[in-house]
Amino acid sequence: MRPYEILSEKELYKGPIFALNQYEVELPGGRRSVRDVLQHNGASVIIPITADDKVVMVRQYREGSNSVLLELPAGKLDVGEDPQLCALRELEEETGYKAAKIRLLFTTYPVAAYCTEKISVFLAEDLTPGSPNPDSDEFVETFLYPLSDIMGMITTGEINDMKTIAGLLYYTATQK
Amino acid sequence: MRPYEILSEKELYKGPIFALNQYEVELPGGRRSVRDVLQHNGASVIIPITADDKVVMVRQYREGSNSVLLELPAGKLDVGEDPQLCALRELEEETGYKAAKIRLLFTTYPVAAYCTEKISVFLAEDLTPGSPNPDSDEFVETFLYPLSDIMGMITTGEINDMKTIAGLLYYTATQK
Repeated sequence: MRPYEILSEKELYKGPIFALNQYEVELPGGRRSVRDVLQHNGASVIIPITADDKVVMVRQYREGSNSVLLELPAGKLDVGEDPQLCALRELEEETGYKAAKIRLLFTTYPVAAYCTEKISVFLAEDLTPGSPNPDSDEFVETFLYPLSDIMGMITTGEINDMKTIAGLLYYTATQK
Repeated sequence: MRPYEILSEKELYKGPIFALNQYEVELPGGRRSVRDVLQHNGASVIIPITADDKVVMVRQYREGSNSVLLELPAGKLDVGEDPQLCALRELEEETGYKAAKIRLLFTTYPVAAYCTEKISVFLAEDLTPGSPNPDSDEFVETFLYPLSDIMGMITTGEINDMKTIAGLLYYTATQK
């Protein structure tokens, strides 16, 4: 089992969030095939934990699910941006909170089959509240939930965003 | 906080795994904006657990990460396919295992910001081994891991596929 050789690559579309490229690849055994792969710059996700063990989360409408989702704060990396600086920036833009302490927990691919997006998940602590400053076309509301409520919110489906499930379960599993 | 109104929608591209549509949406406050949203039919992910508490997993090359990933078995829904039948089909195609017992654990959106893909995660038990029968352009290898090794494999990054992290952490958290 080894990576396929990418023989050629052409851009089919370029938008503000991702580009769509088509690869010609050589499969094991030598046959050729075509793969559509989104080109995404990556993202940072933040698990902001307050001193009294609450998680800072955001609610926002998402076009993909066509519903309002409850999520960990997150955002796309600017070109060349350090994932940790992105995490601190997005946390403050979306929720107003500044974190004095931050560290990387893990990195993960949300849809490795068809998108290059790699997500870095950070734990943010020593939080100071402030005023959110979202992008002009971003509408988010901040909510705090006790960590002890999170597992129930995942099993009932109130939390159904995958990066949020993976991040919060990772954090609770490694805290024990 | 409510869903945006989708004013119009046009297809920019249609491929074998997804289509790419562009929405014109009305933002809160009335301003209009454009969103690129992948149209994906959804997928099923399977957590196959053997009688001696091992997880059946697959290794395969993924174009998005450009690496060989260790994942739970999974596959895309055929048009109109029931997610549970898809789960049983994909488990057998990719690994050869048939499951006599299966149930839905949760559903989740991997990238709700820009893709309609919804994933249904199933627990599969009472397994019988058999011969894999993958698609002609699918190259996967099956491996079994003790459940007790999983948390370590996630924290070291040996497992970095997000549906696999979310599924296995959900299963272990709800088994306790």
